Amino acid sequence: MLFRSPNDSSAAWRKSLSERIPGIDFRADPDIGDPADVEFALVWKVPAGYLKQFPNLKAICSLGQGVDHIFADPELPRGPHIIRLVDPWMGRAMAEWVLLQVLRFHRQGPEYEELQRRREWKSLPAPETSTRRVGILGLGALGAEAATTVAALGFDVAGWSRTRKSIPNVKSYAGPEEFDAFLARTDILCGLLPLTPETRNLMDAELFAKLPKGAYVVNSGRGQQLVEADLLAALDSGHIAGASLDVFQVEPLPTDHPFWTHPKVQVWPHVSAQTNADSGADQVAENIRRVFAGEKPINEVDPDRQY
Amino acid sequence: MLFRSPNDSSAAWRKSLSERIPGIDFRADPDIGDPADVEFALVWKVPAGYLKQFPNLKAICSLGQGVDHIFADPELPRGPHIIRLVDPWMGRAMAEWVLLQVLRFHRQGPEYEELQRRREWKSLPAPETSTRRVGILGLGALGAEAATTVAALGFDVAGWSRTRKSIPNVKSYAGPEEFDAFLARTDILCGLLPLTPETRNLMDAELFAKLPKGAYVVNSGRGQQLVEADLLAALDSGHIAGASLDVFQVEPLPTDHPFWTHPKVQVWPHVSAQTNADSGADQVAENIRRVFAGEKPINEVDPDRQY
Repeated sequence: MLFRSPNDSSAAWRKSLSERIPGIDFRADPDIGDPADVEFALVWKVPAGYLKQFPNLKAICSLGQGVDHIFADPELPRGPHIIRLVDPWMGRAMAEWVLLQVLRFHRQGPEYEELQRRREWKSLPAPETSTRRVGILGLGALGAEAATTVAALGFDVAGWSRTRKSIPNVKSYAGPEEFDAFLARTDILCGLLPLTPETRNLMDAELFAKLPKGAYVVNSGRGQQLVEADLLAALDSGHIAGASLDVFQVEPLPTDHPFWTHPKVQVWPHVSAQTNADSGADQVAENIRRVFAGEKPINEVDPDRQY
Repeated sequence: MLFRSPNDSSAAWRKSLSERIPGIDFRADPDIGDPADVEFALVWKVPAGYLKQFPNLKAICSLGQGVDHIFADPELPRGPHIIRLVDPWMGRAMAEWVLLQVLRFHRQGPEYEELQRRREWKSLPAPETSTRRVGILGLGALGAEAATTVAALGFDVAGWSRTRKSIPNVKSYAGPEEFDAFLARTDILCGLLPLTPETRNLMDAELFAKLPKGAYVVNSGRGQQLVEADLLAALDSGHIAGASLDVFQVEPLPTDHPFWTHPKVQVWPHVSAQTNADSGADQVAENIRRVFAGEKPINEVDPDRQY
């Protein structure tokens, strides 16, 4: 198998996969050897055209929940299974990060930080938790876990997804026809969608205008889903009260980007849910076994839906 | 009955108590009328010597969980029941605030805020939630709820209290002999103790030194439990990595206090758990009924323990 990622440790993955599959032929790019030997590729953000060099590839497994980096390759070979990593630890980490953002906005963290800068001792009216309407954009594995975690604290949680979902204590809005109603009841919007042609630039001026005045925006889906100039305009007009972002159109976020110094924006460097070689290796090892045995892998992606 | 508080709305309490006890004789200071009529006092931080003017007082009820403001009066009349308000909404609000602080420190919020100020895109090593050791100082009604709430997210939670407690998923340390062991295993310390002669200035240089290097300090008990100069020294030496404080030795926090501008301190203006006239009124109304019927009130305080 082949490993290539700019973010993940090849040593950690070599160790965790070797423990699960003794004697595994683990090749970390650039030490590929004969490309014809490579049947399973475990990758994150490889260059376009890179994967077509392996004639016997049976499966391409993303090192994260997202597979948009794989489909972005116009020369992506057709045929291999496309697999995403649904790391249980990642789901917990993401839900935890989303909960932190929701709690910070709910408890008026940004407003109290501003009062501290002004050395002003003043208590603000405190809305009850049950009246705070949190809206999760996307109810896949990550979105559903975040929604459940936030709902457990007593928030009024709804989620929006392509198809209707049944999750305890989470209202389900489905499809384009229920999108506006979902936005109209959302005080804190949390983006947890996969990147597809339909979700690209979904969070734009039109969407922000449909949120109630004073709403907050959180995004830890993909940066390409949010039109950054539109968010800046909505923040500066006061319609959106604050934003916490973990993903951006261009990463790393360019040094001269206005988000860095905007008083209403918190910038996180794509760390809401880091992939963990230990907790993710069970699933990768199982998929290597299945692919070599000719079985259907778990968490395979439908190339038509791209998630 | 008599009402006096610098923080709480007499109109809101008049309304919520009148709904529960129609025709209640609700007198808000300074419209006391004949002091001999006053048998039940609902108060927050009244001046020393104020309560002795009521010769027929049967009960003094605090408008919050703490009763230290009552016992601080050297001329406090002996005889009336001393009652504290255990508002279920306050317990939830406090647990929520504590969880926000724990999550912010756990997810390295202060470090990422500093990276944002420097416009630096860098991910930090992410410790797993189950390895973060949270320590709750005080396992009364508020401390127990905070401990349970934090433990539900998967943190390694322990609590310290005078007597041993049995709370699911929360390790119990009890008494002075187990205090050092509790501190040695605590990465994030959350103060939720009542103010008594024993807890006054408990969080001092000696205590901070017993925490592991890099620990965080959260306090939403009482400001008089924390020696502020000692915390500043521990932050500046790097032994303590950050602090979130909702209570202070002097409130409002004086404008020239170094906490306002300290980069490692977050100042909250005593808002972690604000008393709510709606959710607290059930208990106050029940205690008015009990006191007038000659029954023992709920949440009565032992004057010897003072909590």
